[in-house]
Amino acid sequence: MAITLHYFDLYARGETSRIILHYNGTEFTDNRVSFEQWPDLRDSGFSEFSELPLMEIDNLKLVQSHCISRYLCQKFGYVPKTYIEEYYVESICDLKEDIYRHFANLTFSGNLEQLEEDMQEIAMPWWLRKIEARLVRNQNGDGWFVGSNPTRADFEIFQLIYDYLICNGKESTYKVLLETNAPKVKAFVQRFLDSSPRVAEYLSTRPICFF
Amino acid sequence: MAITLHYFDLYARGETSRIILHYNGTEFTDNRVSFEQWPDLRDSGFSEFSELPLMEIDNLKLVQSHCISRYLCQKFGYVPKTYIEEYYVESICDLKEDIYRHFANLTFSGNLEQLEEDMQEIAMPWWLRKIEARLVRNQNGDGWFVGSNPTRADFEIFQLIYDYLICNGKESTYKVLLETNAPKVKAFVQRFLDSSPRVAEYLSTRPICFF
Repeated sequence: MAITLHYFDLYARGETSRIILHYNGTEFTDNRVSFEQWPDLRDSGFSEFSELPLMEIDNLKLVQSHCISRYLCQKFGYVPKTYIEEYYVESICDLKEDIYRHFANLTFSGNLEQLEEDMQEIAMPWWLRKIEARLVRNQNGDGWFVGSNPTRADFEIFQLIYDYLICNGKESTYKVLLETNAPKVKAFVQRFLDSSPRVAEYLSTRPICFF
Repeated sequence: MAITLHYFDLYARGETSRIILHYNGTEFTDNRVSFEQWPDLRDSGFSEFSELPLMEIDNLKLVQSHCISRYLCQKFGYVPKTYIEEYYVESICDLKEDIYRHFANLTFSGNLEQLEEDMQEIAMPWWLRKIEARLVRNQNGDGWFVGSNPTRADFEIFQLIYDYLICNGKESTYKVLLETNAPKVKAFVQRFLDSSPRVAEYLSTRPICFF
């Protein structure tokens, strides 16, 4: 079962799936496509909707980032048990998508002043409190986001918090923001890291990306 | 089992769920919140993420439009049978989300010239051909999008095509566009309408919205 994840050398829409694969201890080829390679690859019809990430797995070529991470979670058994649990998983993932789009638009349009203001003062604190409330509704915030096992919600939110607010020296900048608005989420991220030496090692050795 | 869908008097992020409820013959309260009512309702904490749509169902208050339509489909049995089938459902729904965001941004920013150009000449023809290819891969395009029963994919794509390219007199403007790029999708939409007098009646009597 050879698995290849094709994505740019970014966290963005590929990193959650990389983390799931490392968490599960599954070998895969992490093909980081350069921006120079991409136009030719795209125009070759490589990806159904002309986008990355694309994952080759089980003789399929999966596209759409959320569908890739969802499929991995299903394959590895990180799945909710009921439709209502699935609602809680998917809706927090969709909230993350809203957050991602907001900050991706600001990042790629170069509006870094607005980005920093939103991060510290307006949008992010509000979102962090919403995520905190979701975590707290399950096992008082001391377990996973939904049920008693990891699901896509945990991987997606871990990636969001770790990559936006902690990695690459961001921790000192956003420490107070995170502690003030989402102390249980902060503890969750640390707990997640401590529980998976494989993820911890990957994160400490992966290429450093700006987004 | 009282169901209420709270949304604005728009198609946008609410219409697919309305169509699913009508298709299934399920009574519900279609609460169309005015833009005047919304700020007070939002600030009251009515909706978890301060957004509509919100659906009251099964003693839950569900948010995030895709989670609402997915939950309805699960409740009514319009579900894929395997994880691979689910991938095909969810990934075409995510493509629709990309299309929705693209045209919503142009619509709400008032860039109607660009919108019309994208609709007729660039983005929409390309997307229509992608949707057509997905439909054709199942039962030669003469059935549903995935498997042998309706799923969320069918409701989402029906809504996209009907509301963007057919309803409210749009049919004459986009007839050639649709016939040229997605003839099987055009036939699918007609077949869907013919199969559900309830949906047909709803669509012919619903409030007319600009988006």
